[in-house]
Amino acid sequence: MRTGHSHLFIPGPTNIPEPVRQAMNVPMQDMRAADFGDLTLGLFADMKSVLRTEKGRVMFFPGSGTGAWEAAITNTLSPGDKVLMARHGQFSSLWVEMAKRLGLDVVVVDVPWGAGTPVKEFSRLLGQDREDAIKAVFVTHNETATGVTSDIAAVRRALDENFHDALLFVDGVSSVGSLDFRMDEWEVDLIVTGSQKGLMLPAGLGILGVSEKALEASRSARSRRAYFEFDDMLKMNADGYFPYTPPTQLFHGLRKSLDRIRAEGLEQVIARHHRLAEGVRRGVAAWELSLVAEHHTLYSDTVSAIRVPADVDARDVLRIAYADFNTSFGSGLGPLAGKVFRIGHLGDLNDGMCLAALSIAEMALYRAGVPIRLGSGVGAAQAWYATQADLRPMLRVAAE
Amino acid sequence: MRTGHSHLFIPGPTNIPEPVRQAMNVPMQDMRAADFGDLTLGLFADMKSVLRTEKGRVMFFPGSGTGAWEAAITNTLSPGDKVLMARHGQFSSLWVEMAKRLGLDVVVVDVPWGAGTPVKEFSRLLGQDREDAIKAVFVTHNETATGVTSDIAAVRRALDENFHDALLFVDGVSSVGSLDFRMDEWEVDLIVTGSQKGLMLPAGLGILGVSEKALEASRSARSRRAYFEFDDMLKMNADGYFPYTPPTQLFHGLRKSLDRIRAEGLEQVIARHHRLAEGVRRGVAAWELSLVAEHHTLYSDTVSAIRVPADVDARDVLRIAYADFNTSFGSGLGPLAGKVFRIGHLGDLNDGMCLAALSIAEMALYRAGVPIRLGSGVGAAQAWYATQADLRPMLRVAAE
Amino acid sequence: MRTGHSHLFIPGPTNIPEPVRQAMNVPMQDMRAADFGDLTLGLFADMKSVLRTEKGRVMFFPGSGTGAWEAAITNTLSPGDKVLMARHGQFSSLWVEMAKRLGLDVVVVDVPWGAGTPVKEFSRLLGQDREDAIKAVFVTHNETATGVTSDIAAVRRALDENFHDALLFVDGVSSVGSLDFRMDEWEVDLIVTGSQKGLMLPAGLGILGVSEKALEASRSARSRRAYFEFDDMLKMNADGYFPYTPPTQLFHGLRKSLDRIRAEGLEQVIARHHRLAEGVRRGVAAWELSLVAEHHTLYSDTVSAIRVPADVDARDVLRIAYADFNTSFGSGLGPLAGKVFRIGHLGDLNDGMCLAALSIAEMALYRAGVPIRLGSGVGAAQAWYATQADLRPMLRVAAE
Amino acid sequence: MRTGHSHLFIPGPTNIPEPVRQAMNVPMQDMRAADFGDLTLGLFADMKSVLRTEKGRVMFFPGSGTGAWEAAITNTLSPGDKVLMARHGQFSSLWVEMAKRLGLDVVVVDVPWGAGTPVKEFSRLLGQDREDAIKAVFVTHNETATGVTSDIAAVRRALDENFHDALLFVDGVSSVGSLDFRMDEWEVDLIVTGSQKGLMLPAGLGILGVSEKALEASRSARSRRAYFEFDDMLKMNADGYFPYTPPTQLFHGLRKSLDRIRAEGLEQVIARHHRLAEGVRRGVAAWELSLVAEHHTLYSDTVSAIRVPADVDARDVLRIAYADFNTSFGSGLGPLAGKVFRIGHLGDLNDGMCLAALSIAEMALYRAGVPIRLGSGVGAAQAWYATQADLRPMLRVAAE
Repeated sequence: MRTGHSHLFIPGPTNIPEPVRQAMNVPMQDMRAADFGDLTLGLFADMKSVLRTEKGRVMFFPGSGTGAWEAAITNTLSPGDKVLMARHGQFSSLWVEMAKRLGLDVVVVDVPWGAGTPVKEFSRLLGQDREDAIKAVFVTHNETATGVTSDIAAVRRALDENFHDALLFVDGVSSVGSLDFRMDEWEVDLIVTGSQKGLMLPAGLGILGVSEKALEASRSARSRRAYFEFDDMLKMNADGYFPYTPPTQLFHGLRKSLDRIRAEGLEQVIARHHRLAEGVRRGVAAWELSLVAEHHTLYSDTVSAIRVPADVDARDVLRIAYADFNTSFGSGLGPLAGKVFRIGHLGDLNDGMCLAALSIAEMALYRAGVPIRLGSGVGAAQAWYATQADLRPMLRVAAE
Repeated sequence: MRTGHSHLFIPGPTNIPEPVRQAMNVPMQDMRAADFGDLTLGLFADMKSVLRTEKGRVMFFPGSGTGAWEAAITNTLSPGDKVLMARHGQFSSLWVEMAKRLGLDVVVVDVPWGAGTPVKEFSRLLGQDREDAIKAVFVTHNETATGVTSDIAAVRRALDENFHDALLFVDGVSSVGSLDFRMDEWEVDLIVTGSQKGLMLPAGLGILGVSEKALEASRSARSRRAYFEFDDMLKMNADGYFPYTPPTQLFHGLRKSLDRIRAEGLEQVIARHHRLAEGVRRGVAAWELSLVAEHHTLYSDTVSAIRVPADVDARDVLRIAYADFNTSFGSGLGPLAGKVFRIGHLGDLNDGMCLAALSIAEMALYRAGVPIRLGSGVGAAQAWYATQADLRPMLRVAAE
Repeated sequence: MRTGHSHLFIPGPTNIPEPVRQAMNVPMQDMRAADFGDLTLGLFADMKSVLRTEKGRVMFFPGSGTGAWEAAITNTLSPGDKVLMARHGQFSSLWVEMAKRLGLDVVVVDVPWGAGTPVKEFSRLLGQDREDAIKAVFVTHNETATGVTSDIAAVRRALDENFHDALLFVDGVSSVGSLDFRMDEWEVDLIVTGSQKGLMLPAGLGILGVSEKALEASRSARSRRAYFEFDDMLKMNADGYFPYTPPTQLFHGLRKSLDRIRAEGLEQVIARHHRLAEGVRRGVAAWELSLVAEHHTLYSDTVSAIRVPADVDARDVLRIAYADFNTSFGSGLGPLAGKVFRIGHLGDLNDGMCLAALSIAEMALYRAGVPIRLGSGVGAAQAWYATQADLRPMLRVAAE
Repeated sequence: MRTGHSHLFIPGPTNIPEPVRQAMNVPMQDMRAADFGDLTLGLFADMKSVLRTEKGRVMFFPGSGTGAWEAAITNTLSPGDKVLMARHGQFSSLWVEMAKRLGLDVVVVDVPWGAGTPVKEFSRLLGQDREDAIKAVFVTHNETATGVTSDIAAVRRALDENFHDALLFVDGVSSVGSLDFRMDEWEVDLIVTGSQKGLMLPAGLGILGVSEKALEASRSARSRRAYFEFDDMLKMNADGYFPYTPPTQLFHGLRKSLDRIRAEGLEQVIARHHRLAEGVRRGVAAWELSLVAEHHTLYSDTVSAIRVPADVDARDVLRIAYADFNTSFGSGLGPLAGKVFRIGHLGDLNDGMCLAALSIAEMALYRAGVPIRLGSGVGAAQAWYATQADLRPMLRVAAE
């Protein structure tokens, strides 16, 4: 018998706010009803705000973010097309694998796990590509496995400085709705995300932002596709409908999530993620442990991947946290297994929750044999949070 | 302001039972936790029971049934493969369209909407196919647009009698969990369904039953696929995990749905669908209206497509039911638009709910100008239900 | 295993609207928080609107309507006080019993079950009471056991015409929020109701409307009281707090219920109850059965008590409805046990739900041996509902 | 916009476990149905286990614990009866006030807030009472205002040693289901509790355990009572029914709460409360602040009342915690207002939640001007929790 609530600090799926959960707990309704668009049409508009695009189109595919990756590729590229990608973590590696399976000719740049997107190398390769053979550049905005946030604006500059017109694909699964992302300003052509991270919903929606240029590319792309066909989706979406049965309950949840983001303010949401993440990082520093991210400019505000001492198995930390303290942290993936545990700090969180995470992590580290002073990380985070609270907007009691 | 509960009688998504809704209303959890398989592993086993297979494998893809169609095709067939399909309604037509998009060479047999799968013609074509050029036969078990249930066993016989070893694909989206379906007995190779019909859940899971023969075919099939790759799914499923974030809440709902089906008994579920459907059909007969299904052997126990008189627009019936009586019926699709309305009678229903549907349909027909005697259809259905109730198992009060 | 939703047609507790249920499904909160009044203060104001009082005070006691009866008596009367009451059903009888237990000197007028409040006899007794020995007159607005609505305005006239200043107590448990009730216009001093009828909530709140005259009386009343003390309640309520732990979740539900009543409009709510009740009564007439209520002017729009033929046991009707059709009707109470079943038609209902009730009642009557033509009552009700729908406000799709 | 979940650390109402909340979120049902006892009868039996009584009777009154106080008094005592009570906190004071209002002749022993029940003085007064004029002794098992747990067994000994047969009343509102309480062993005659503390439900049920001796007393007690009449309740309860509409949803919640207590084991529940409380107290000690409770033998395992330095207003601590950190602590009541804040640590809690409470309390104290070392209290608590975890039963993953 576990008592009390579970403590969920994985980097997604994230904690679902109560009002979002209640919004989803509704009876089934007719997705062909005359007024179904009253629910759905506003979602497209408000999702565009979160992506910071006015010109792009938004699509919601029933599926995971991985499905949305596939939708982005198959609608805009053809087998044999050359694309430029980096591998610097589990998710960027999986994306490379998918691109290959779908028949693309992938130019892979491998950099260490912990590094960001190798913008200089990308720039060099784009500069060499005189005939624009590279049809698309793929960037993982936030590599969830390593807690590394890459600089999308820099990649855009690399394209522009090389007068290269490749499409710019961005994996924003663990960044959209949490980190600063600007589709129009950075001229992103395909931004892919999912419902289960910054949008604070269960998994089940693969979400795409698609630029006019990407839509144009979709008219000639020859990859086979059916389920993920943009055309079918756009035609039906015009009136708020879908080409197959959509996950209506998730739409109700998304309505509430987008309302919450608007009520807090996207800028404030991003600032809050930074504030909470910084507290966690100060805690990690107090423990004298290091992050996987190679440099402070790469630190992710949605997830921290923390190295444990070499003589400790990070899996013990995870196991103790789960079994003894009803708490889930993220595991080390791929080559980081056993060396790293991750604290997800994105979505619907507050200071107290992050302090709970740190205090439990301390106990788990302690019990796993890491020589840590109990309370040290918490204290460092508190010193940050306790002096930051006045930066937050005053309490609006009636807000929710 | 609408008062009272909505009356949902579309042929899916269907009414979600209260206990299933509550089961889904749970906090997010870690889909990589050591004990996640405690939730998921039983689902595979119990879903196999619903499909009546012991040898087949079950897969759950985040997506709709349409996605599962695609998974079935791309994993087992190659571009250029010849397949045999019939068109006799909206959904069989869409499946043909998908097969073409995915590069298959489709032999299409067109029969009237209202007819069943043309087994004789299929048999003739299979007999002619001396070199087994036809790699797969596709059958829509229940054509939701017309309320027609086809005879899968007869298609299997046609294959066997012609000593043909094409794969047998079945679309069971609106049949599985409601109608008599037997994967092993009928040697179905790929059965496709979704969460939102007989399984009484929201849309969001594309569900597949895959035979050993189909798995064997997947090893050489050359269609490009990534998201829907069987291999990835099977590898992770072995321990109860998934290759990308699964819709955990839906799994909790599925757990409860499968428990309910087991508690009622699959045979009883099927018998109940027949009993309820027969009452609806007796009501329709009392109205002196006809079904789209051409012959009583084709009548679907999950949906009835009802023709309105030529001088009445069926859309008015739908509009009145929705606007005046808070009730959703299914619309006529494609060429049946305006000529037909559909009553979905599948999933979590009982006699009183079906009588509500009939009584509202009567009022909507009446107000739309159909010369109907109010109470006539309800009375005919009551005469059936009131004498059938003793066929049901005695009340088990503590069951739920 | 019961399938489909239960059909609840008892005269309370009533069906809880989905949005009300969701509103109550919230985490616990601090009932002493600085902003707790944001939730509670509006409830007092909006409940006054439902009671149609501007001058009266509203109180919410944790407890049932029976508790609110006691609160009304003990705060405003003293042991030995003479009061005038009628007995014409189960609930008016219970109220008499309570008054006696609490030490009042009750002048009881017994009239048949099925009659209304005997206003003429009340008037005669008040006229004889030259010294105003009668301190209070108690009236059951809607006698739930018999389906009889009494004329409160007439009782007020009887008091006025006799220049009698007794307090006027009204039991509005099954009338408030459903029937026309006017606290100020009828100068009601104590109106008692509960959360579980027209307010569409679970039981748990005893609700009182208290006139200035009643508050004045409370200053000198000498009945012992503690839990139900008006003074404690009023002092704490001033800032939105309560003298002991209040049922916070019910308050959230009440907030939503009052919002719904306001959105529909109290006049429309009352008109809807009349419309739905009239359909049920036409059904009963078509069955050639009679109501307990003696005269059509007494017919209750919230509950109909229906006599079954003498050779049938009404308990069989109830048992069959429950066991075979998952439906609850109200039983005959006290002397009506076995002779009567009741259909509650108050709260969150619509036409289709009432037709379901009638169609199930027909089947239960039929199976219990009542010679009834199946469909007859439903048809009569449909003929009423189908021609009444245009009286309703046009569909406001986005309303909820 | 508040983000993340609220942190609720008041000494009741307490956090409602998710499964309990879901259990309550069910449609309304018929409280007169033939099978209603299937829900209710087991509640009486299992509540007796929590009270550790075999001989006593359990009653559930719709209302708060205050209502149950009144039920206990009015059913077993008569106006003018002499009773012995102590005042050492807000709730014991309120109980004295109620006893006086209900006409009892109260012998009050005043001791400081922070002291326990004055057993020696009680013993002296009982010894002097040669004619057994004292009809009842009232004891507040856990004084929620001061965080003081009194020794019921000692009071029983005082009665026995003086050969006194007064009834023993115990207020167990904030002890039952959390602290060691033994109705039969301590021969408690009336134990009063509520749904909203150790039983982890919303307020709304006043719960009584009644001994045979108390039932015997109820036959001659002459206090006026109606709503709270034991006889009515017991008669209807025999078959699982209630004399007036019961709060059905709360019963479903109680069913789940009692299941949880049984699954954890009552001994383990009590041990967990001690373990969590001890961590909080070690945190307070590390802050160098003191508890209101005068002596460690009086420390409550359900609530700690913590004194702030004289130059700090405890209301600031509460205000900061609520406004800046979305956290509710208990306020200082009566003479302790401004001098004390309280941390409730009862009900559905775990280590991480208590550490969150301590870490937030530290930040609030810090911001309110208390010279505290951030992390000090958390570290002290962690040192306790991290070494206690192995005392807990191994993870039973499938338990819930």
